[in-house]
Amino acid sequence: MKILLIGATGLLGKAISKELEGKHDIIRAARHNADVKVDITKPHRIKEMFEQVGKVDAVISATGNAHFGPLEEITPELNEITIESKLKGQINLVLLGMSHVNDGGSFTLTTGVIMDEPIYQGASSAMANGAVKAFVKSAATEAPRGIRLNSVSPTVFQESPEKLREFFPGFEPVPLSKVALAFRKSVEGVQTGKSYEIY
Amino acid sequence: MKILLIGATGLLGKAISKELEGKHDIIRAARHNADVKVDITKPHRIKEMFEQVGKVDAVISATGNAHFGPLEEITPELNEITIESKLKGQINLVLLGMSHVNDGGSFTLTTGVIMDEPIYQGASSAMANGAVKAFVKSAATEAPRGIRLNSVSPTVFQESPEKLREFFPGFEPVPLSKVALAFRKSVEGVQTGKSYEIY
Repeated sequence: MKILLIGATGLLGKAISKELEGKHDIIRAARHNADVKVDITKPHRIKEMFEQVGKVDAVISATGNAHFGPLEEITPELNEITIESKLKGQINLVLLGMSHVNDGGSFTLTTGVIMDEPIYQGASSAMANGAVKAFVKSAATEAPRGIRLNSVSPTVFQESPEKLREFFPGFEPVPLSKVALAFRKSVEGVQTGKSYEIY
Repeated sequence: MKILLIGATGLLGKAISKELEGKHDIIRAARHNADVKVDITKPHRIKEMFEQVGKVDAVISATGNAHFGPLEEITPELNEITIESKLKGQINLVLLGMSHVNDGGSFTLTTGVIMDEPIYQGASSAMANGAVKAFVKSAATEAPRGIRLNSVSPTVFQESPEKLREFFPGFEPVPLSKVALAFRKSVEGVQTGKSYEIY
């Protein structure tokens, strides 16, 4: 399969790439240092990416910036950081990319555990996770030409920096290789509208 | 209690008002024909509303516009209608209203069944529902001064227009009076971070 992987340069993107590259043709997209440049907060950049890449069999999003901060300090403006990137950025990949995906292809987006198990300073990011999960579930019922949509909701990674892991007290970190398997399941499997929870 | 009810002029708002008005002091907010005018898509209008109303014990949102349309016709621009109103509008009520709510008070926002059971043309609205539910669950863990946050997720109403009910085939409509009870439970009860599902 020809797979477009957005967020290919991050920890998660690299793990997904490693899991899939032996068997598939991966086109790596990111803001910098990738095969294709993209900024998912800009719809016209998403369009340019799809035009540049041509038809693909799978689109994977392993990206999405979010604002983390105490609830009482989250302003509408700071919340917008999350909405523009992790929420709208990922959803616009679907809205603008559907016609660039081959029959029977798939989209796989990324959410995260904190929509189900809140952490301190995580309200804005949880919002985006919930939005993406619900959108995927609903959009999957209307996707044309046998195209499937799923999301993967990982918990914190064993490989995450210690400073980040400290925000997840008592959460059992999972290896990135295990999270990457869920992306393979989504891309090569048969399910649609599913949230793969790797907790 | 002094309760600020946003979306007071709609079907749901009127039912909530009827349920609560005997026991509480209700301040009705809406775009038109209410005690206080507000457009929740404009953060400065939300601020003006809270300044006008002063401190309250409970904020209820029974409002939020969403775009309904077939997935393949949802553009980023049409999706923005939902994001501005049902998603950001409701969340900004919390972000901008927290300091105007008395100790031990509450916020109750509105989501909907289609985040759990998709309907045709509902992907954009489902997105907002999922966002609001997850935000409420997470924000509830950080709310100061004993303030509680919940959301109510109703299915289609018995009183909804027939044209709307047709989009919910096989869904059992519930009376508005039953949905209104969930708002009373949220306002007068003890739970926080809860999604009350009235299906």
